[in-house]
Amino acid sequence: MAQRTNLDAVLNRIDQDFPQALERLIDLLRIPSISTDPAYQLDCARAADWLAEDLKSLGFEAASRPTTGHPIVVGHGGTGDKHILFYGHYDVQPIDPLSLWDRDPFDPQVQDTPKGKVIRARGASDDKGQLMTFIEACRAWKTVHGNLPGKLTIFLEGEEESGSPSLIPFMRKNAVELKADLALICDTGLFENTVPAITTMLRGLAKSEFTLRAANRDLHSGMYGGLALNPLHVLARILAGLHDNQGRVTVPGFYADVAELSDELRQQWQALAFDHTKFLGDVGLSVPAGEKDRTSLEMNWSRPTAEVNGLWGGYNGAGFKTVLPSEANAKVSFRLVSQQDPTKILRAFRTWVEAQLPTDCEIIWHDAIEGSPASVMSITDPAFEAARAALTEEWGRPAAFIGTGGSIPIAGYFKTYLGMDTMLIGFSRDDDQIHSPNEKYDLECFHKGIRSWVRILEKLA
Amino acid sequence: MAQRTNLDAVLNRIDQDFPQALERLIDLLRIPSISTDPAYQLDCARAADWLAEDLKSLGFEAASRPTTGHPIVVGHGGTGDKHILFYGHYDVQPIDPLSLWDRDPFDPQVQDTPKGKVIRARGASDDKGQLMTFIEACRAWKTVHGNLPGKLTIFLEGEEESGSPSLIPFMRKNAVELKADLALICDTGLFENTVPAITTMLRGLAKSEFTLRAANRDLHSGMYGGLALNPLHVLARILAGLHDNQGRVTVPGFYADVAELSDELRQQWQALAFDHTKFLGDVGLSVPAGEKDRTSLEMNWSRPTAEVNGLWGGYNGAGFKTVLPSEANAKVSFRLVSQQDPTKILRAFRTWVEAQLPTDCEIIWHDAIEGSPASVMSITDPAFEAARAALTEEWGRPAAFIGTGGSIPIAGYFKTYLGMDTMLIGFSRDDDQIHSPNEKYDLECFHKGIRSWVRILEKLA
Repeated sequence: MAQRTNLDAVLNRIDQDFPQALERLIDLLRIPSISTDPAYQLDCARAADWLAEDLKSLGFEAASRPTTGHPIVVGHGGTGDKHILFYGHYDVQPIDPLSLWDRDPFDPQVQDTPKGKVIRARGASDDKGQLMTFIEACRAWKTVHGNLPGKLTIFLEGEEESGSPSLIPFMRKNAVELKADLALICDTGLFENTVPAITTMLRGLAKSEFTLRAANRDLHSGMYGGLALNPLHVLARILAGLHDNQGRVTVPGFYADVAELSDELRQQWQALAFDHTKFLGDVGLSVPAGEKDRTSLEMNWSRPTAEVNGLWGGYNGAGFKTVLPSEANAKVSFRLVSQQDPTKILRAFRTWVEAQLPTDCEIIWHDAIEGSPASVMSITDPAFEAARAALTEEWGRPAAFIGTGGSIPIAGYFKTYLGMDTMLIGFSRDDDQIHSPNEKYDLECFHKGIRSWVRILEKLA
Repeated sequence: MAQRTNLDAVLNRIDQDFPQALERLIDLLRIPSISTDPAYQLDCARAADWLAEDLKSLGFEAASRPTTGHPIVVGHGGTGDKHILFYGHYDVQPIDPLSLWDRDPFDPQVQDTPKGKVIRARGASDDKGQLMTFIEACRAWKTVHGNLPGKLTIFLEGEEESGSPSLIPFMRKNAVELKADLALICDTGLFENTVPAITTMLRGLAKSEFTLRAANRDLHSGMYGGLALNPLHVLARILAGLHDNQGRVTVPGFYADVAELSDELRQQWQALAFDHTKFLGDVGLSVPAGEKDRTSLEMNWSRPTAEVNGLWGGYNGAGFKTVLPSEANAKVSFRLVSQQDPTKILRAFRTWVEAQLPTDCEIIWHDAIEGSPASVMSITDPAFEAARAALTEEWGRPAAFIGTGGSIPIAGYFKTYLGMDTMLIGFSRDDDQIHSPNEKYDLECFHKGIRSWVRILEKLA
């Protein structure tokens, strides 16, 4: 009962301190830590410093540590039999198109919406708001108990949105220091807004970018039109053939290492009664657009994809320029599942594209052959049941084991390089508009997220 | 024989006066009359004034006349049974990218090149050098004979490079004054550098721009990939289907109003022995890319095209953004021939695109339904034979009746609004780099161009 009382005291402290927790989050959100754009390099460093200082104030031995890219913040603190590592990322997505934001993405504001109060800013949900749920949980615990809730390592990177180039070298170099008994990652979401969830399947990711080049300069479509090869036409033909009319990816061998879903998970997922009409309806769509013979959850969680993320070429300014451009460009990414090997997939894609190039069309590949495979967690670890119970208590609804369509390669890296399992617990909602204009995080998620971690840490640490 | 003697006197005068003619052209080229950029508005007016003054000095009743845009210079002079209107344009293309110019585009200089002397400056070939060939011809004639070589109207616009918005209103308002028996336009080229040519076929042009919209915002390709419609895929599929595997445009009815080439022109064009290997080789290509069953000249001069001039959507910055964009955009233009109606073609294109849109994908059309039809001259008019003979005399090679892949809508407007036929004779070369950095005009073209007009006017007027 002592523990129960102590837990209530910490939860009460969280409730009382919530306005201040929000102010701290707003401070962090003000720093435009866009990792892909070199113009924001100092801002990334500033965000890392801010976090290191905050961790120190909680008694962590913490520092912003240099890498060849943006710094990684590491903090160690607390005592206990079980060593737990918490991962988050302080970098954020770019903000373009800025014109679609209702306000400055780095001037955070609490707004009333029909669904409740939200904090609106780039990074509010992905991932600054989420990582702060864990830090605030530590703070409340420390305030009540005078110490941290177990032996903890906090590990915050600044390159998650730009491919994490420094992550693996850093983990390798500091493997002994970083290896814990279990990793926690807070970069995922609730299930359909109200059901707490532990994500046990993550898709992998492979990215490719290329330029098609035809003539040695842009041509006048009057003088050359009809006679000179137009690389935009070549690009359209190649990308149009990426899927067949059943929505399946046509690259040879693409599905070779894709496992079918187990009966157990298939049944669990059916029980979740995912409402794809609402999921798509929220973003203005009505019909699932992918593989015709798969359920929506399968498509999103356990099936691989090929998506064009960007294409460009020729004149795209105001008015018209009747140009036959010399170049056409595309960025294409693949979400991977099961045993799909990113390197194998990218090579198959390259081979498939190159086989379609006509005479006079050369290709320049801009991607290094790399990517991250999918992760599938072992849900038989007792920590998963403990966390599920804690989440169910906080949210009043049974927590679910779910998949996610996104890619959090770090979970795979933790297994590969540090030999530890990961539990992914997060509190974002589908309408958080992460990676889009007007990103937000619900104050309810921030608040109950902090409370959730306290309950989880009490059971785990 | 008196006439012949007089002709020689005029030609001699041209030869003697050539250094001064060049100085006058350089004066005109120094004025940066870029019509698309409002910053050069006063320079356009200055160029118009310069030309009006020069025409007055030759005895024309001339003025720079205001429009809602840049002025139009009109000069009337001379006497004769046949009234001839000469058209040119004094405005020039923008100069960007300036860094690719070897020197200031508005500080003209005569340069020695392996192929002969050139005058290098923006507008040297398009169209100041060309229009001055006609004015210098008039000057030499006037000097020798004391009068102009026939009843002439000079008509020089200043908005050709920016869509000629004031042209049709001005022609309509002054139709009685401007209507002549025949129009001459000097804004085309020689055939393959050495063969004088009369352009008798011009392609028309229709332009279309549209946006495809799917989700109401950009989506994360992890959360939505495989499930949400990607408008870039839709765009690729539509544009990939614009041509069949024989290079033919697939829009229904596209070829309905396209006439086959007459046997006479087909034979003439075969005799021209167009070297497409060189034409394409100069821009780094080797194989004609259009309709498989057509010759290169046909494809370029007498066959219609559909070309994607620009496409864009999603993320195109440095690095990667795994976004499913909400929008995809394209600019598509059509070169038209024979009786193809731009309005009908654009409507057919719209219908064809819209029929392919999947559920959840809407289209926004940005183009007004408009365009210009092709122009085909009636080469049976005796004026064509007379001009052909004059050009053949000057250049020592038989002049050709050719087509051009480009569009010079003014010829169509003269027919529509003033009821007169047009003869297109020009002296530019394919390597003049019009619309590009380092534009030039060969002194040989300038010189023999002036001499050509004297010979033509002697036969016509």
